[in-house]
Amino acid sequence: MQRYFIEGTVSLNEDCVMDEKHIHHIKNVMRAKTGDEFNVVDSTGSAYLVRLTDIDPVTYTVLESLQAEVELPIDITLYSPLLKGDKMDVVIQKSTELGVHEFILYKADRSVVKLNGKKEASRLSRYEKIAREAAEQSRRTKIPAISFAGSLKAVDFTKYDLVLFAYEDNNLTGRSIKDVLKEYNAKTAAVVFGPEGGFTEAEAALFGTYENVALGRRILRAETAPLYALSVIGSYYE
Amino acid sequence: MQRYFIEGTVSLNEDCVMDEKHIHHIKNVMRAKTGDEFNVVDSTGSAYLVRLTDIDPVTYTVLESLQAEVELPIDITLYSPLLKGDKMDVVIQKSTELGVHEFILYKADRSVVKLNGKKEASRLSRYEKIAREAAEQSRRTKIPAISFAGSLKAVDFTKYDLVLFAYEDNNLTGRSIKDVLKEYNAKTAAVVFGPEGGFTEAEAALFGTYENVALGRRILRAETAPLYALSVIGSYYE
Repeated sequence: MQRYFIEGTVSLNEDCVMDEKHIHHIKNVMRAKTGDEFNVVDSTGSAYLVRLTDIDPVTYTVLESLQAEVELPIDITLYSPLLKGDKMDVVIQKSTELGVHEFILYKADRSVVKLNGKKEASRLSRYEKIAREAAEQSRRTKIPAISFAGSLKAVDFTKYDLVLFAYEDNNLTGRSIKDVLKEYNAKTAAVVFGPEGGFTEAEAALFGTYENVALGRRILRAETAPLYALSVIGSYYE
Repeated sequence: MQRYFIEGTVSLNEDCVMDEKHIHHIKNVMRAKTGDEFNVVDSTGSAYLVRLTDIDPVTYTVLESLQAEVELPIDITLYSPLLKGDKMDVVIQKSTELGVHEFILYKADRSVVKLNGKKEASRLSRYEKIAREAAEQSRRTKIPAISFAGSLKAVDFTKYDLVLFAYEDNNLTGRSIKDVLKEYNAKTAAVVFGPEGGFTEAEAALFGTYENVALGRRILRAETAPLYALSVIGSYYE
């Protein structure tokens, strides 16, 4: 069933006018008719089943509250450098489906992609659109936040309960993600991935005291590694 | 380190002339020089470290046998319908990185993409190239086989130790992949996914006696579902 993230909050049996930004999708993509049902998620993350009562303006009545918990019980912040071509789009879309809480796109020492401020703003709005659509399609109740950051050494990782660091050079010696999760009762975790060319030694040294994890025995591409990690983390809790 | 899949077998200390199909990559992509080292994997799946001894013809000497086990201890055959656009490429590439044994591309009742025999042949050769490159890049010792099949009802699933079936309509009631793997001592498994529009009831009914698994609490796209399943299966064994 189609799902829309709306501004503000709604209550049961309330009649509501749909936010302007979803009108085009409802009228022209879904070609919705009065009586059609869909889901809305309000700004507090509560999901509802609603029914369309009018098309002009687009109005719906709130039928019932949807209780199913679709979010992970741990907030995962994914640290990834900007990746080349459409790989970043793939990571944003699929990580959102897999339940990520937040994306922080940092500048790796070996980052290939460099953006100026203006380009950053337009990329951000593209990524936010991809994340919102993926959250709707996968029936989530949260849209992951996305932001750009400087280099890894400027990040305060002490604010997370757990920091997982996937270092290709140690892939066979790193610990398994499941074993690490078992040891921590973490509510928040940062998962840090490197660029196509890997971390520099200076970057790797920043994570000396954190958990170096292995991503299986094969070498995964930069855009596959986060999807593996998020799948494994999700399956641990679900 | 670069890795090439070669025809035939090699032995330690042997001097070998490189297969014609890799010459272009070695000379023009890697711009290799005498003394450079790389890996070859022979037709039995044995991996070796080798050193280039001549460029014309491209010749190498076999230095040592590489013992690291990079293949999954279970042969996973992925059943997927042909997906739209470049989604099939993504599934082939990433599933290969994640250790899949074989791909069987079947005709789903709701398949959107339909190919005639000539197009099938050209697609097959593209997919085989993607799988070979992904196997090389992820340092595997096997290249997954790929073939086209008819509808699901013509497939003999009894030949697998275990059959996992991911049915979106039962996503919240299906069992977890880990729990199912624990119960079976499977050496071979089929993992069956549906098309963008989902399975028909007739297709779902074929799997009544097999294991219906859940892929987490969110709804995954057709091309994300296999990546989740393979990640979780890999992490169970590794």
